Amino acid sequence: MRDLRIAVIPGDGIGKEVVPEGIRVLEAAAAKHDLRFKWDEFPWSCEYFLEQGRMMPVDGLDRIRHHDAIFLGAVGFPGVPDHVSLWGLLIPIRRGFKQYANVRPVKLMPGVPCPLAGRQVGDIDFIVVRENNEGEYSSIGGRLYEGTDQEMAVQQTVFTRQGVDRILKYAFELAQSRPKKHLTSATKSNGIAITMPYWDERVKAMGARYPEVKVDQFHIDILCAHFVRNPHWFDVVVGSNLFGDILSDLGPGCTGTIAIAPSANLNPEREFPSMFEPVHGSAPDIYGKGIANPIGQIWAGAMMLDHLGCPEAGASVVAAIEKVLASGLRTPDMGGKASTTDMGRAIADAV
Amino acid sequence: MRDLRIAVIPGDGIGKEVVPEGIRVLEAAAAKHDLRFKWDEFPWSCEYFLEQGRMMPVDGLDRIRHHDAIFLGAVGFPGVPDHVSLWGLLIPIRRGFKQYANVRPVKLMPGVPCPLAGRQVGDIDFIVVRENNEGEYSSIGGRLYEGTDQEMAVQQTVFTRQGVDRILKYAFELAQSRPKKHLTSATKSNGIAITMPYWDERVKAMGARYPEVKVDQFHIDILCAHFVRNPHWFDVVVGSNLFGDILSDLGPGCTGTIAIAPSANLNPEREFPSMFEPVHGSAPDIYGKGIANPIGQIWAGAMMLDHLGCPEAGASVVAAIEKVLASGLRTPDMGGKASTTDMGRAIADAV
Ligand SMILES: CC(C)[C@H](C(=O)O)[C@@H](O)C(=O)O
Ligand SMILES: CC(C)[C@H](C(=O)O)[C@@H](O)C(=O)O
Repeated sequence: MRDLRIAVIPGDGIGKEVVPEGIRVLEAAAAKHDLRFKWDEFPWSCEYFLEQGRMMPVDGLDRIRHHDAIFLGAVGFPGVPDHVSLWGLLIPIRRGFKQYANVRPVKLMPGVPCPLAGRQVGDIDFIVVRENNEGEYSSIGGRLYEGTDQEMAVQQTVFTRQGVDRILKYAFELAQSRPKKHLTSATKSNGIAITMPYWDERVKAMGARYPEVKVDQFHIDILCAHFVRNPHWFDVVVGSNLFGDILSDLGPGCTGTIAIAPSANLNPEREFPSMFEPVHGSAPDIYGKGIANPIGQIWAGAMMLDHLGCPEAGASVVAAIEKVLASGLRTPDMGGKASTTDMGRAIADAV
Repeated sequence: MRDLRIAVIPGDGIGKEVVPEGIRVLEAAAAKHDLRFKWDEFPWSCEYFLEQGRMMPVDGLDRIRHHDAIFLGAVGFPGVPDHVSLWGLLIPIRRGFKQYANVRPVKLMPGVPCPLAGRQVGDIDFIVVRENNEGEYSSIGGRLYEGTDQEMAVQQTVFTRQGVDRILKYAFELAQSRPKKHLTSATKSNGIAITMPYWDERVKAMGARYPEVKVDQFHIDILCAHFVRNPHWFDVVVGSNLFGDILSDLGPGCTGTIAIAPSANLNPEREFPSMFEPVHGSAPDIYGKGIANPIGQIWAGAMMLDHLGCPEAGASVVAAIEKVLASGLRTPDMGGKASTTDMGRAIADAV
């Protein structure tokens, strides 16, 4: 019996609805695979902010630093500006725990209607690896001549050698471990002509250390078009914080629903806990109706099991998701009528 | 008889193959609509660079400043780095002539196989308006600690009030002039939390001046997913230099081929000539085979006619493109066998 101590942060909106389903399925997997979860729940959220004036306590990171992993729902709700909620909870965890590798699988699943014409299960199956700590999401910048005609806002993109190299290393290792050994780099060095050529140089330098990996690169504009036109080309796709963000929503958009897509925020060195969340947000528009699709959260739980060294348990969860989707059960976002709980229960049963 | 004096820059690669077809069709439209073109050709290109050490002469802009418009093919070719070719020709013209409004229609055309499932002609018909002079494409930045472990590259995004407001004004005016009066703004203010909130503020301020226009905004990540999932939602979509670039390749990607997409680089004040080019690049991989699709270039010619105050002539060119596409004639990029010249001739005949 292995014990796993997980910090649970349901967060906002549908995060609160899908996290319990994630836990339900993980408990089912634990029962089967000789694991014992201990769930410590933290109420950090926009609601918490409205009471406490902060998204999490001052010592928030310390309170979850020694957990085996973090299981997060979604952050952000109308009434609290994004730069407060996200920059007060989600982004401090990603950065504070050096979760620099954001890993987001894109896979066409059985039973999910595909918005791309003529694509079958098996045609779309790749992984977006996103730099998760620096790049375009810096806090360096500000305004000048505020309130006048000369007003301007500037913001700096920062690519450090350490920051770029560690995500590229992660992506190359991942590509090397897969049958196709194919890595695609997202760039825009023809337009963003200072930072992106640097990214390209580091890709080239890192590539020299992985001679077996076939590397190509596309500018982000045409790469987005290729996701739609040629999704079967891709195996591992690596991008900066912004480009990885875009590609990891567009990819799931091409497979039918972003609600099923999971996201692992990894600290590959395991110095700190990693965090697992769905790609989707708190979806205030459907919150409270019990119709949110819990699959992104559940699949994130499978990635957590993989990361914690329980790959059989992780695989059993993914297999259960596929089985239930193939059976035709669907939440409204996929054109069905199942509730959040229906879906969670069905997947737990299938495990 | 109206005289139109056009600076022609075929540029590189397939630019040299498609520009003559554009001219062929424009001549056909001129014959029908009582126009007389004078074409002044400029050989500025990567080939020119290899001979002269510059992409265009020092006084290049002065040589084309008094033309009615610029008709450009494509810039860039292996052997000359992009930051030399593009930043030595394309971008100096866009900036030197204050072509701050980059207008790129996205339209599903008859006869073109659509990569999105179940979409019909009429379902996808919107316009991307891209800021074309500032934003993420600044030249401000550089490197520190080069060649060491501490190495970093930084680059600044710059949004000026004048730069943002003028493109928003253009986009709002355009939306107001269309039946749906719907404007979508691309943002990422939750992540790029200094410059993008400024963009959002200016959208709000400008929106107050156009009460009839229905405005919404999406973060660029989910917006890209909506292009695939809900392309019928959009009417006019406005974005920064980078976001507009991405959306104006993704949009045409969703309508079947980026080779038919046109791009107008407008100086709305008409202080300087505007420039018309296809969205696609010089495509070195297919250059010299005579198979490039000339429709992007031809459609750009139609936009030039519109801009020059000859909307009937412009409409006749677009109608001819639609007629020929509906007839089933297709270049290889659309799954057919027609050559560049076959296509150009057929469209000229249809005009
Ligand atoms: C070639 C490149 C610099 C250019 C851009 O990004 O502006 C191109 O992609 C375009 O869209 O015209
Ligand atoms: C909410 C936002 C800041 C976040 C991001 O851009 O990182 C989200 O889009 C994501 O992909 O996790």
